[in-house]
Amino acid sequence: MHFITYELENKSVVGLKINDQAVHIQALAKHYEEEEIPSYLENMKTIIEAGEEALAYINQLKEYYVTNKKVQSVVSTHLDDVKWRAPIENPGKVVCVGNNYMDHCIEQNVEPPKQPLIFSKWPSCLIANGEEIELPEESKQVDFEAELAVVIGKKGKHISEEEAVDYIFGYTIMNDVSARDVQFGDGQWVRGKSFDTFAPLGPVLVSKDEITDPQNLDIKLTVNDTVYQDSNTKQMIFSIPYIIAYLSKGFTFEPGDIVATGTPHGVGVFRNPAVFLQKGDVCSIEIDQIGTLQNKVNEG
Amino acid sequence: MHFITYELENKSVVGLKINDQAVHIQALAKHYEEEEIPSYLENMKTIIEAGEEALAYINQLKEYYVTNKKVQSVVSTHLDDVKWRAPIENPGKVVCVGNNYMDHCIEQNVEPPKQPLIFSKWPSCLIANGEEIELPEESKQVDFEAELAVVIGKKGKHISEEEAVDYIFGYTIMNDVSARDVQFGDGQWVRGKSFDTFAPLGPVLVSKDEITDPQNLDIKLTVNDTVYQDSNTKQMIFSIPYIIAYLSKGFTFEPGDIVATGTPHGVGVFRNPAVFLQKGDVCSIEIDQIGTLQNKVNEG
Repeated sequence: MHFITYELENKSVVGLKINDQAVHIQALAKHYEEEEIPSYLENMKTIIEAGEEALAYINQLKEYYVTNKKVQSVVSTHLDDVKWRAPIENPGKVVCVGNNYMDHCIEQNVEPPKQPLIFSKWPSCLIANGEEIELPEESKQVDFEAELAVVIGKKGKHISEEEAVDYIFGYTIMNDVSARDVQFGDGQWVRGKSFDTFAPLGPVLVSKDEITDPQNLDIKLTVNDTVYQDSNTKQMIFSIPYIIAYLSKGFTFEPGDIVATGTPHGVGVFRNPAVFLQKGDVCSIEIDQIGTLQNKVNEG
Repeated sequence: MHFITYELENKSVVGLKINDQAVHIQALAKHYEEEEIPSYLENMKTIIEAGEEALAYINQLKEYYVTNKKVQSVVSTHLDDVKWRAPIENPGKVVCVGNNYMDHCIEQNVEPPKQPLIFSKWPSCLIANGEEIELPEESKQVDFEAELAVVIGKKGKHISEEEAVDYIFGYTIMNDVSARDVQFGDGQWVRGKSFDTFAPLGPVLVSKDEITDPQNLDIKLTVNDTVYQDSNTKQMIFSIPYIIAYLSKGFTFEPGDIVATGTPHGVGVFRNPAVFLQKGDVCSIEIDQIGTLQNKVNEG
């Protein structure tokens, strides 16, 4: 299923993307149920926490929607008219993996890491598809990074590589926007990576069953009409199951946690000449089987 | 007021520490009210979000408690019998400041930073007073760091130094437990600082009005009977208002966010010989006007 979070009457609601429609899950459930609807439909994190039960139920709702023309017009909005929100708005943590594409290591002239290089972004910098990336006053070097983001589905620690997939809910796209001068000036990356608006996420959160092979997805980033990043997730040095197993040795994953799996070659700072985001630019990231995350750049 | 979070019938509830008693705020409100009690009493974050209104109301409850002997026995538990929880269990972010005490820079032989050195811990590593710090398999060098932690009271960005205090809810104690081998091995500090149990927090969250001067508090850490850190928050290089103003230039603070303000000299790794936490150790941090945060060390 293709989950989306969007605004309806100034509130954040969860929907399904079905064809070109945003289908409001709570509204659909109210048509489907005689009695009370499940409380976990309230937001994406509670749906994830509810696990298989929620997925099975929402799947029933989906079938009900597809086969009931009368309901369709009442519970859905054309995607063009939707004000998107980030598909997870309140993750417990945003875990990022650095230098995880071989081609990205080569362009930086760094040795590929012997183990995943872990850093973090604060969840307060998440924005949605269509929202603006704001250039902060503190930086003159705001860069883009196309990334496949994994959304964790259930609580776990000491997860083996083999069972890692059981702990995944689904996949989405993140732009790991980075103020290079601040990132490298500070040494610790979190501040330069966590300015408000520096984590566009979305547009959809695709449940894992819809992705044929997460380690074989084309990933492409354009700014305006120029392609800057063009790679495939099979170029990752450490696979998604490896990363989950590695991290879960030391800490507990929780439903809704986000793991951004690194960016391929082509980021702005290592180009010659370097390229940084400017006011008016439009940054788009496309990942196979997920969609396109698009954000315009503006002054902060 | 001295806020605590603790376990009651396997649920997390918010209380006031009054003398040697934990006073269950929701239960007290039920005695006080004829009608429904405010929903924001549910957890510490919702209380903080509710702002001045909540503080005024809880203050009324406190007076009611103090003057009603009959109610006291019904809504309170002796602190000795309380299973503590972290005073904020679900902060949006845990922001940490490195090398923020002059004496700590000297012991490391590093220049005092020209601007705050910012890093992060993931909230999943928070534990309560009395819970055990677990030594992870990945590290042989688990160290302690006594820190004054500021809890943010309201949403804000571009906060000036002068108005920073308006954005503070109160103060507590954090032990910024750090796996030195992982921290320095990774380069990025977040993994070595975020193993499960690596952020003991508490025991109480003291509202700011109860602290005479946050920049003049004795801070002391002992392991078993040995004093390792003994300093005062006036030794901070960057004051709390400065740190809040600095960070809020780039990102939005949210109610419940935690800012750990750095540790004074005396941490284990820079001693000669180095000292690291061992199974069975008891680590205590005492800060003036707040209390003592105590955690035993065990195997992971």
